[in-house]
Order: sequence, then structure tokens, then C-alpha cells
Amino acid sequence: MEPKAIQDYYPDDVAHCYGCGKLNEHGYQIKTFWEGDETITRFTPKYYHTSIPGYVYGGLIASLIDCHGTGTAALAAYRAEGREIDTIPPFRFVTASLQVDYLKPTPLGIELELRGKVLEQKEKKVISEIILSANGKITARGKVVAVQMPENLIVNRNA
Amino acid sequence: MEPKAIQDYYPDDVAHCYGCGKLNEHGYQIKTFWEGDETITRFTPKYYHTSIPGYVYGGLIASLIDCHGTGTAALAAYRAEGREIDTIPPFRFVTASLQVDYLKPTPLGIELELRGKVLEQKEKKVISEIILSANGKITARGKVVAVQMPENLIVNRNA
Repeated sequence: MEPKAIQDYYPDDVAHCYGCGKLNEHGYQIKTFWEGDETITRFTPKYYHTSIPGYVYGGLIASLIDCHGTGTAALAAYRAEGREIDTIPPFRFVTASLQVDYLKPTPLGIELELRGKVLEQKEKKVISEIILSANGKITARGKVVAVQMPENLIVNRNA
Repeated sequence: MEPKAIQDYYPDDVAHCYGCGKLNEHGYQIKTFWEGDETITRFTPKYYHTSIPGYVYGGLIASLIDCHGTGTAALAAYRAEGREIDTIPPFRFVTASLQVDYLKPTPLGIELELRGKVLEQKEKKVISEIILSANGKITARGKVVAVQMPENLIVNRNA
């Protein structure tokens, strides 16, 4: 059975994120899965997602870490309740703060792997650590503080 | 006289950054200027640079803060040497670490303003604080640790 990505279960009215929304045709549409006690996202940047030629743009790395962090938070929230991600009510987290350390240049032209671990979890707040690797070498490390999306952010939900 | 953007003076072989490279036709091509003792960048996101509908994607905000920070670092390096940005040798900084606090949702559909201040400056390292505003309200705050790009990052320079 194919593992399920958390982003495939974000409700349609909050599935337009440029980083991870399945309904954003211009965006990255990343997919985040459990793999044991870690979460994983794989992504291959386009040739133009460059900083210094030959290396991946740091803003894209920050973006991937950001959405992997909110996805990790939602996955962790379901798991804490002992629920599958295709059950309702859904969880949707947004980013309160983001820290990225660029440890070494990330080579462009290959698939990147992001792995997340939950560092701290409360009902409405999940802090995760995200490690980005290229060719098996760690090139960046992030920390994402994600909070449950306030319902009043959404215009016309249930209207 | 038009003020000069630091990105217009990045050497052509390091002017392909997705966030601020004048030679990246797919990218944001941000422009960073001095305005007194602060640096400023203005940018209007596209409609698809969204997170939750109606608000700007956090990864784009991180990207803008990132490139505004490296631009601020280069501007500050010239100023510390008492040189104009159209003189050589050029300065080009890359990001060592990035912190972004998302203070409130950033509305989509209007021009954003980023203002930078140098917090700490050494010869090869500049730390800046970046404040992002929309409609005159501060919505995000960033801190960028920028370091001078190692020359060996560039393939074929002077080859």
C-alpha cells in the first residue's frame, strides 16, 4: 500500500500553499510521510532554483524545511490522537518561526531528502527538527515552530 | 539620480540567484538599496505565492529576508571600506543562517517592504535584522547571518 502524504488530506480550502498545496499548480507540491518515527519529504529542485551556480537556492531550502515542518506537525497531531490522517477533523498547522542553518552548499541537480523529528509537542504547537541531505550528506538543518492554524484565518469556511 | 541596487553590481557569474539574481529570468530579482542607515527592498508577490488563501507564503517571506540580508551585508561591506558599489573588487555574501519569526499573517496582493539594519559587522561576516511590513504593519521579523562567499564555490571563475 502506498504511504499517505499528509498534504493529500489537507482540506481543499487550505490546500493552496505554494510549498505544499496539492491545488497550487505553480508551487512545489511537496509530500510528507511518516517513515518510522521520522517524517520524510523528497524533492528535486529545478535548474533555476539556484543561488551560486551549481548550488541550491537557500530560500528554496527554507521553503522546503518550512512546509516539511508544518506537515510533520500535522502528522504528529494525528498520531498523538491515535487517528489516521484520512479521518476528521483535519489538522492544519502554520509556521510561527523558522530557523535554518546552512551547513554547506547543497548541490543542484539531484533529489534532496528532508527528515523531520518532533522535538516538542503540545496540543496546538509542535516543534520539529528538520535535516536536509543531498547525496547522503547533511547540508542544512532547520527548526520549525508550528502552531495550529486559527480558524478565523479562513475566509468563508462553512459559509 | 536613481539609487543603485546592490544586485545590479553582483558579478555576472554570481548573478543567477533565484531570489535576487538579475540574470535569473525565473526568479524574484529583488533589488536592495540604502535608505539612510537602513536598507530597503520592495516586492509584490504573485497571486500564487500564497499559504492560506489571502496570505503570503512563509517560504517566500523567508526567501525575501534571506536575499535582503545578503544584499544588506554586501552594501555594508562597501560602506565600511568607503567605496561605492560600482567599484571593484565586488562583494558577494551567502547565508550561513536565517531566523524568521512570523508575527502575524502577511496579506497577499499588495507591495511588501523589507527594511534591514546591520546588527554586527566584521570583515567577512555581517549580521542583519530585517523587518517585513505590509500596509505599514510589521508582519515578520528576520535575522540573517551572512558570510563572504568562498571564492572556491565558483566553478571556472577566471578560468
